[in-house]
Amino acid sequence: MSYEQRLKDLGIELPEAPRPVGAYVTWQRTGNLVTTSGQLPWVNRVMQYPGRLGAEVNTEDGYRAARIAGLNALAQLKQALGSLDNVAKIVRLEGYVHCTQEFRDHPRVLDGCSDLLVSVFGDAGLHTRIALGIYAMPLEACVQLVVWAEAR
Amino acid sequence: MSYEQRLKDLGIELPEAPRPVGAYVTWQRTGNLVTTSGQLPWVNRVMQYPGRLGAEVNTEDGYRAARIAGLNALAQLKQALGSLDNVAKIVRLEGYVHCTQEFRDHPRVLDGCSDLLVSVFGDAGLHTRIALGIYAMPLEACVQLVVWAEAR
Amino acid sequence: MSYEQRLKDLGIELPEAPRPVGAYVTWQRTGNLVTTSGQLPWVNRVMQYPGRLGAEVNTEDGYRAARIAGLNALAQLKQALGSLDNVAKIVRLEGYVHCTQEFRDHPRVLDGCSDLLVSVFGDAGLHTRIALGIYAMPLEACVQLVVWAEAR
Repeated sequence: MSYEQRLKDLGIELPEAPRPVGAYVTWQRTGNLVTTSGQLPWVNRVMQYPGRLGAEVNTEDGYRAARIAGLNALAQLKQALGSLDNVAKIVRLEGYVHCTQEFRDHPRVLDGCSDLLVSVFGDAGLHTRIALGIYAMPLEACVQLVVWAEAR
Repeated sequence: MSYEQRLKDLGIELPEAPRPVGAYVTWQRTGNLVTTSGQLPWVNRVMQYPGRLGAEVNTEDGYRAARIAGLNALAQLKQALGSLDNVAKIVRLEGYVHCTQEFRDHPRVLDGCSDLLVSVFGDAGLHTRIALGIYAMPLEACVQLVVWAEAR
Repeated sequence: MSYEQRLKDLGIELPEAPRPVGAYVTWQRTGNLVTTSGQLPWVNRVMQYPGRLGAEVNTEDGYRAARIAGLNALAQLKQALGSLDNVAKIVRLEGYVHCTQEFRDHPRVLDGCSDLLVSVFGDAGLHTRIALGIYAMPLEACVQLVVWAEAR
């Protein structure tokens, strides 16, 4: 099973790995653990679906935004490992959702990334998750995601 | 020293490990590190002490909620490792407290889980901790906790 | 290259590692990974720049606060490893910024710690980062930071 081939079968073309917005790097590896920096839902440096879930952004657009941030995370993993085929498994998804105080549908939003990870990696894409409603977010992003992966 | 025996001595019966509320799993292992998904203070799928610290939930009930979420985390670790006796040590507790903007007693709330971990594992239960006041939480939970453990 | 010497060349004297404010410890090691507890911008147990970014605290003071919390994190790493020369590299910075709902300059604030890490460790100080705007913070801190390091 090649995950790179699976991406092609799914018709997914990974974006370029977004560059950092401060004095840091976008992925790091320690032992076999690779973690990304917080990934945002932008495409070519243009923020998609800016705003808060429950106000400017609805749940289905939040799902789409989480998928976009997930694609950016995959691009970081590919840059870190040379090929997604060097991913042994996905370990964790940190899901930070910019939202109103009343919003409660964080799980559905984050499934946009979780579903992507499972569609690409199958059982090796099953991951732990946190889901938090965040008060203020850099760059008006509606979600910020971190993906942890284990390298082969 | 058996941690399973210590649980019995303390009169603690672990719940069944709660199932996920989205497209993810409740624990993952990479190398010797086991991390849980965000654990909530529910018992048999009924949320205990729903609401915000500083408003609907007082600090002592928050402490109780953190203990319940901690028991759910222990149930996840047991499922991951077969037995709590396979825990080498607890590494980290991520403490996310759903609260009002004025609430400041996050440490006391989170001690509900920290005290549990130390009562079960002794010195091997000593862990690092983050304590954050969260704006909006899935399922109206008053706390969400993640536990990291090192496997033997 | 000695990181302890670099500290001296930079005229930096590390504080004593702050003690915990609850039932936990301030650093833990699992394998070669060392993580700190949430570090706050205090000096001798006096909170510096208390309040929220965007209200009581301006961005440049937030930058200074992040640097102070970073120095406390370095003190924890030194306590964990005996000497900063035993750091192989910095892996991750978790940046939690206490702020108003409108604040968006989290990256600039967190650069206060990121710049410190790179000035001390050079390329080995490059790290991944998350940047979140937090609603309520223990002890009125304006930032809370966690540093992950890999031990030699």
